[in-house]
Amino acid sequence: MKRHILTFETYDDWDTGPLEATYVVHNLPHGGEVSDLSSEAIANIEAFAFKGHNKLGAETMNAFPKLGMIANYGVGYDTIDVAYASSKGIRVTNTPDVLTDDVADLAVGMVIAQSRGMVGASEWIKSGNWAKNGAYQLGNKVTGKSVGIVGLGRIGRAVGERLQPFGGEIHYYSRSAKGTNGWTHHEDIVEMAKAVDILIVTLSGGPDTIGMVGVDALKALGPEGLLVNASRGTTVDEEALLEALETSTIRAAALDVFENEPNINPRFLTLNNILLQPHQSSGTTETRKVMGQLQRDNLAAYFAGKELLTPVN
Amino acid sequence: MKRHILTFETYDDWDTGPLEATYVVHNLPHGGEVSDLSSEAIANIEAFAFKGHNKLGAETMNAFPKLGMIANYGVGYDTIDVAYASSKGIRVTNTPDVLTDDVADLAVGMVIAQSRGMVGASEWIKSGNWAKNGAYQLGNKVTGKSVGIVGLGRIGRAVGERLQPFGGEIHYYSRSAKGTNGWTHHEDIVEMAKAVDILIVTLSGGPDTIGMVGVDALKALGPEGLLVNASRGTTVDEEALLEALETSTIRAAALDVFENEPNINPRFLTLNNILLQPHQSSGTTETRKVMGQLQRDNLAAYFAGKELLTPVN
Repeated sequence: MKRHILTFETYDDWDTGPLEATYVVHNLPHGGEVSDLSSEAIANIEAFAFKGHNKLGAETMNAFPKLGMIANYGVGYDTIDVAYASSKGIRVTNTPDVLTDDVADLAVGMVIAQSRGMVGASEWIKSGNWAKNGAYQLGNKVTGKSVGIVGLGRIGRAVGERLQPFGGEIHYYSRSAKGTNGWTHHEDIVEMAKAVDILIVTLSGGPDTIGMVGVDALKALGPEGLLVNASRGTTVDEEALLEALETSTIRAAALDVFENEPNINPRFLTLNNILLQPHQSSGTTETRKVMGQLQRDNLAAYFAGKELLTPVN
Repeated sequence: MKRHILTFETYDDWDTGPLEATYVVHNLPHGGEVSDLSSEAIANIEAFAFKGHNKLGAETMNAFPKLGMIANYGVGYDTIDVAYASSKGIRVTNTPDVLTDDVADLAVGMVIAQSRGMVGASEWIKSGNWAKNGAYQLGNKVTGKSVGIVGLGRIGRAVGERLQPFGGEIHYYSRSAKGTNGWTHHEDIVEMAKAVDILIVTLSGGPDTIGMVGVDALKALGPEGLLVNASRGTTVDEEALLEALETSTIRAAALDVFENEPNINPRFLTLNNILLQPHQSSGTTETRKVMGQLQRDNLAAYFAGKELLTPVN
């Protein structure tokens, strides 16, 4: 007999096929409410295939009497109240590692694309300005620029490895020094920001890292500095960042994440010293397929009473 | 007494200042004709500070009776008739090496930006589509993809070194095998194109490399393949490339160079599987300053009767 699960947001065909072959799948689409589900569905659902960045707290969990498992699609689970889940004996899993490469690739892409003005240059040629008005404005060199990585987890390390052949010093902030290939450890983000040209944030989200890159770090980064955020919008003080960009306290930013996604602060849209990406750091077909598989493997392990593959609690 | 030189196109302030302090500077702006200059200027000009990608052949050289030196701003001199210059005893210099890093950086940026749809993703967020219609379409993974470099000169090598931490195999085409860190040598471009996911062209321009990447290489690259051109528009058969993109014989292209710059073939503008850049691979403030200095150092060496720093003939 098929067990009942609840999926959140939209899944690709390569996920819905296998999910529906195994489970009775109920869905809560973007903007949907628990009250949209039938009382029978609510009574039967034993696990969530969770997706997206909306809050998932006590109220939602308590609405489902048989809920025992939240399988998150993604590495970050900062919007899930894991402490509450643990207190209720609800298991939580995520999809780490499998998206590390994609996030690091996009972070490097953001460094180059912002420094070299690639989006504006593309518009320049598409709008006919190249033929009409000549060369596009000059950009900023990437090779040789010193880089500071805020948070040296798997993603931060993957970013550093990719930037090493670009020849600049690699610095990193973390609570303790780690084994690296000659990279410079800092215990203070502001001190590190003073030492580098490019600050790349790869922290986890959640309450511990809120606003860790704040007004002082941005000031220390300085008027030639570039801030790249490939983590969570919460890790950077967004008001301080907007002001730094508006007053050219820093040179530029490249952001894949924002405090209020997808309804980002409209002030971002008026800036010309910024590269915006719609939280797509793990957004490749290859990686999304692997993430979906890992989410299903965790669900299968839960229902089989086996050890979870990538447990969070 | 100041010697007379002729500058082509537009120079930045950091170049015109030092040039005018040393020489009597005449200028031929974009679209200008030799006949716009006074006969006195034409009689006095002894050297060109050449820039841009227009043809510089016998007719122009013969118009200036005292011309003995063409200092090119850029590494590529494929539009200058060097053989004719040599036959007249006119020395030619270029600015190699100093722009290698910038070209390699942009080539890596083009690989990531095209694969990850960064330009379209930027438009998606700017146009409000993220908030209105949800996530942007998925892109293609970069890490692990095998790369084939067409032409392993300084720039090709710099591209390979930067892509090595992305974990894919590195292949290269060149007439003879070179010392590399485990990269695979091919003597045939079509054979290499079969073996790789991404083909990156870093050949020199000029008559020897015209159309070297042609219809067979594009077919061999295949429907998942990405072509990146950071060399000269002439090195790729543009008609074959347009057809390959229009019929999805290859997945996509990222191009910084075109056959007819800046009046590129309008068919490029209707494609959505392409990333366009306006020949800006050396376009950073840092590098352009160094290029201008090297051009001036060559001019100074010529007028002082000293050995030229970076002679072409």
